[in-house]
Amino acid sequence: MNKGLLIVLSGPSGVGKGTVCSVLRHKMPELVYSVSATTRQPRQGETDGINYFFKSRDQFQELIARGAMLEYAEYVDNYYGTPRDFVEQTINSGKDIILEIEVQGALKVKETFPQGVFIFLMPPSLDVLKQRIVGRGTESQDVIDSRMSVAAEEIGLIRYYDYAVVNDEIEAACHRIQSIVTAEHCRKERFLANLPEAVKTAASEKA
Amino acid sequence: MNKGLLIVLSGPSGVGKGTVCSVLRHKMPELVYSVSATTRQPRQGETDGINYFFKSRDQFQELIARGAMLEYAEYVDNYYGTPRDFVEQTINSGKDIILEIEVQGALKVKETFPQGVFIFLMPPSLDVLKQRIVGRGTESQDVIDSRMSVAAEEIGLIRYYDYAVVNDEIEAACHRIQSIVTAEHCRKERFLANLPEAVKTAASEKA
Repeated sequence: MNKGLLIVLSGPSGVGKGTVCSVLRHKMPELVYSVSATTRQPRQGETDGINYFFKSRDQFQELIARGAMLEYAEYVDNYYGTPRDFVEQTINSGKDIILEIEVQGALKVKETFPQGVFIFLMPPSLDVLKQRIVGRGTESQDVIDSRMSVAAEEIGLIRYYDYAVVNDEIEAACHRIQSIVTAEHCRKERFLANLPEAVKTAASEKA
Repeated sequence: MNKGLLIVLSGPSGVGKGTVCSVLRHKMPELVYSVSATTRQPRQGETDGINYFFKSRDQFQELIARGAMLEYAEYVDNYYGTPRDFVEQTINSGKDIILEIEVQGALKVKETFPQGVFIFLMPPSLDVLKQRIVGRGTESQDVIDSRMSVAAEEIGLIRYYDYAVVNDEIEAACHRIQSIVTAEHCRKERFLANLPEAVKTAASEKA
């Protein structure tokens, strides 16, 4: 059984990860979308195992303690994280899975899955990013400045990623991500790893 | 000025490199197709600089002597090879160039351009390759056996390539090659190398 790819889509807050991912769901229905775990209460219409895996605080902390979370963070008194089991089961079943997560979380995932495909979604420019952060609503100048400073630091972490996709236009960004997934399936290392044993033996005898 | 990509499409004799390349010309008109040099006589309708760079034997040997051929080989008393100038001028002008060449020639090109994108076109199976070689015409069993043996050896050289594209269906193979080119343009290393100097300095200060 060929293993699926673990694809991590990340980038600074405000770059449009969520929007790109929701368009990708339509364009790439063959991809499995990772479901996060959280301790926050389900909202109306949210289903356990579809929108989130809903956990109690004790349950979540126990998952952390036994290494069952690939990455996690606490926001506004609630835990959010990526359960390891779901990711491993998916790639072991031969399907590709995509994780849409924050920059720091992505680097945690890389510790466990260095063979993952790490894609950094870039704003076309810092000015555009600022407009998106300002455009979100009623944040004060201090909040905007602080978010811009965090974004600049996060962009510095691009060096730990494999690919940079500029989110200048959603369709174009999605096309680039689709191309990256197709190309990664053609990488020689994966191709050779997925050959039947008999062929691999023949190939290595040529070496 | 961003540099273009050097893309090398290779694979065993009979795998369909030429056919794939001719379909790619329609699908990817933005790619520059490398023009080989040869000492053979122009055939009716062939134009110098379009189909081939036509050279005398002395001229070709002088090009070899001063390192102006990226790779070359002699078939049936004629030289064929890839002029280095044309490749370098194209990528320096920011355009991508594709070379469709034999497996051994591709490895020579890699010595000069290790940063190239090396794609190995694979037959769906050795049986299919054999059918294609047999189907070409009137070769004797000895010739077929010898070609199959060469093909098997060439497939063993896939380990020096970056990508393996199975030529199961021409449209699918072309789509994979297009995806590889798009993905390679998104690679972090190329993205960072092509950033303006001011941004690079800012990014390295974060390091």
